[in-house]
Amino acid sequence: MTGKFIVTPWEVKGNIDYDRLISEFGVSKIDDALLHRIERNAGELHYFLRRGIFFAHRDLKWILDEYDKGNKFFLYTGRAPSGNIHLGHMVPWIFTKWLQDRFDAELWFQFPDEEKFLFKDDITLADTEKYTTENMLDIIALGFNPKKTKFIIDTKHAGLMYREACKIAKKITFSTAKAAFGFTNEQNIGAIFYTAMQAVPAFLPSVINKKKIPCLIPHAIDQDPHFRVSRDVIPKIGYPKPASIQCRFLPGLGGMNDDGKMSSSSGDNATVFTTDDEKTVRKKIMKYAFSGGKDTVEEHRKLGGNPEVDISYQWLTFFEQDDRKLEKIYHEYRSGSMLSGEIKQILVDKLTMFLRKHQMEREKARDKVESFILKL
Amino acid sequence: MTGKFIVTPWEVKGNIDYDRLISEFGVSKIDDALLHRIERNAGELHYFLRRGIFFAHRDLKWILDEYDKGNKFFLYTGRAPSGNIHLGHMVPWIFTKWLQDRFDAELWFQFPDEEKFLFKDDITLADTEKYTTENMLDIIALGFNPKKTKFIIDTKHAGLMYREACKIAKKITFSTAKAAFGFTNEQNIGAIFYTAMQAVPAFLPSVINKKKIPCLIPHAIDQDPHFRVSRDVIPKIGYPKPASIQCRFLPGLGGMNDDGKMSSSSGDNATVFTTDDEKTVRKKIMKYAFSGGKDTVEEHRKLGGNPEVDISYQWLTFFEQDDRKLEKIYHEYRSGSMLSGEIKQILVDKLTMFLRKHQMEREKARDKVESFILKL
Repeated sequence: MTGKFIVTPWEVKGNIDYDRLISEFGVSKIDDALLHRIERNAGELHYFLRRGIFFAHRDLKWILDEYDKGNKFFLYTGRAPSGNIHLGHMVPWIFTKWLQDRFDAELWFQFPDEEKFLFKDDITLADTEKYTTENMLDIIALGFNPKKTKFIIDTKHAGLMYREACKIAKKITFSTAKAAFGFTNEQNIGAIFYTAMQAVPAFLPSVINKKKIPCLIPHAIDQDPHFRVSRDVIPKIGYPKPASIQCRFLPGLGGMNDDGKMSSSSGDNATVFTTDDEKTVRKKIMKYAFSGGKDTVEEHRKLGGNPEVDISYQWLTFFEQDDRKLEKIYHEYRSGSMLSGEIKQILVDKLTMFLRKHQMEREKARDKVESFILKL
Repeated sequence: MTGKFIVTPWEVKGNIDYDRLISEFGVSKIDDALLHRIERNAGELHYFLRRGIFFAHRDLKWILDEYDKGNKFFLYTGRAPSGNIHLGHMVPWIFTKWLQDRFDAELWFQFPDEEKFLFKDDITLADTEKYTTENMLDIIALGFNPKKTKFIIDTKHAGLMYREACKIAKKITFSTAKAAFGFTNEQNIGAIFYTAMQAVPAFLPSVINKKKIPCLIPHAIDQDPHFRVSRDVIPKIGYPKPASIQCRFLPGLGGMNDDGKMSSSSGDNATVFTTDDEKTVRKKIMKYAFSGGKDTVEEHRKLGGNPEVDISYQWLTFFEQDDRKLEKIYHEYRSGSMLSGEIKQILVDKLTMFLRKHQMEREKARDKVESFILKL
């Protein structure tokens, strides 16, 4: 992999070299020894781990050592509401659900409804607030334990959060924020302050429970700059440095050469939304999913397809849980015995099944929203 | 008046040239025409206005025009808790009480309990929170109308305020904040954001009541940079530009050549606290109040004292309401018939009377605190 790429909390572009990100961000690669360790603690290995979709971490060994000592951790992840949820957004949350189940962990789920408002010109707080509720439905639909999951919304829970954010903010200079996020002097002061709000859920349960509880943050790699800064600061105000585990991005339908991350802002056709109907999903995959196949059937049968760049295959690595089925698809497509239309059909079927269940659960979630939101 | 002086929200030093401040800050001097106008609306002229203690304003004529049209304004002032209240702090609040009575105005009183925490190294949030309650007693003791006065505390009311602060913050760049407050890149991101929180009470009643209510902010001149910035921004988010009226500082006991503002941080002996007992007040005035008298009684009788630099006289301009009494003191001291010890005694008696009543009301206020705090 070569070429230029950008990964920040606000922009993901280009053909991402994840090995280079590991060294640039200073995260650690999840190696075989750590995989075995996770398997021992969790009783199994999620296929996102087996396949390197979750590929990097900070202090994961420490959090498992604490777990072994009986010092259970809580999970923290989030969603900055700004539009509908697409399948790329779901990746870290699917994994978070597995972590919650396997480690019987409490989950604090942040909805920073001010973030996109502060960082984008064309979005109002009324917009982000509308999406907050809609986005919650997708998260609840994944089956998080209602007794162990707490939703916090920055503007609504600021009475609890702002005080803690001030403690963090006092320890972060503009120079530090500038270096971590690439701000200029023309950045607005709300966006500059924002990282302090994103730090809060990593220790808020410790504040509320008046004891130091370890925190594990599953997140897509682009959010790492926030936690790089807050990991420095949180111990200075007396709370444990949070551990984290990072995933790579589900590529956009247009292919990995255009966008490293599937982005809803690259147009509706670059992505599949959780609310897309079956016809739309079929059309998007058939029409827009970049193909690693050859130009003619004859050539394809002879030379085979290229799964490395084939988006349908790449998406199946995220959504086909069965390793043997996936391997079979790989070889058949690679050899040319499976055509592009056929691998697309497999993906369409897979997504249709996934979304049918998800959309059902999503509707059922409407009555549950209030019970997930942290009581003030 | 010559020499160097500094007036910012965090530092007031030197021999302040208020005329120069008017031009540097861009506020307008309160002229005779405006004094007559205020008198007509208020039915009388507060002695702080007659004596130029409240000396400058922004858009005061507009707020009175609105008042004449039946569009009543609300008042907004505040106190950043960080220590006990001294007499200098009380000056704008005494005037605010008069405005409330004369214009039947609602008062929103902000306690930004994070401000001093963010701007000073040696103060904790626990400290500022302790002082918040103590400081409230002094404000209630001044007799504000409990039905028309609402206390808001930044960390407690952030659930209401942070959302509005974000709207303000989105419109203020770091460059703007840097220019207004003299920040460097080493300023912390909480302090940088803070001005957005200070802007909120100037339009929060409009948000809550869903109508545009004019706002008048009585404050000491050092806070003007905050409102200079927020006056630019508030109309951009759809609320009326707040008007303001500025007072000068009660000088420190050590004299106006040392400190333009009486500062509790210059030591307890530079100031009189509202909780000082009679013996302490007497001692402080007798011992530390800078005298404009001559070195010997003989010389004083012959040449007279200098009221312009005499702190006892200067303080009497703030605390002796009766113009004729004050004028008599001026002439007797000026001519030498009144000695330094005598003018000090007059001040001691005046402050003793003031504080006796204040301390009684202050104790009675303990039961009222909760009723003044805005209900969430």
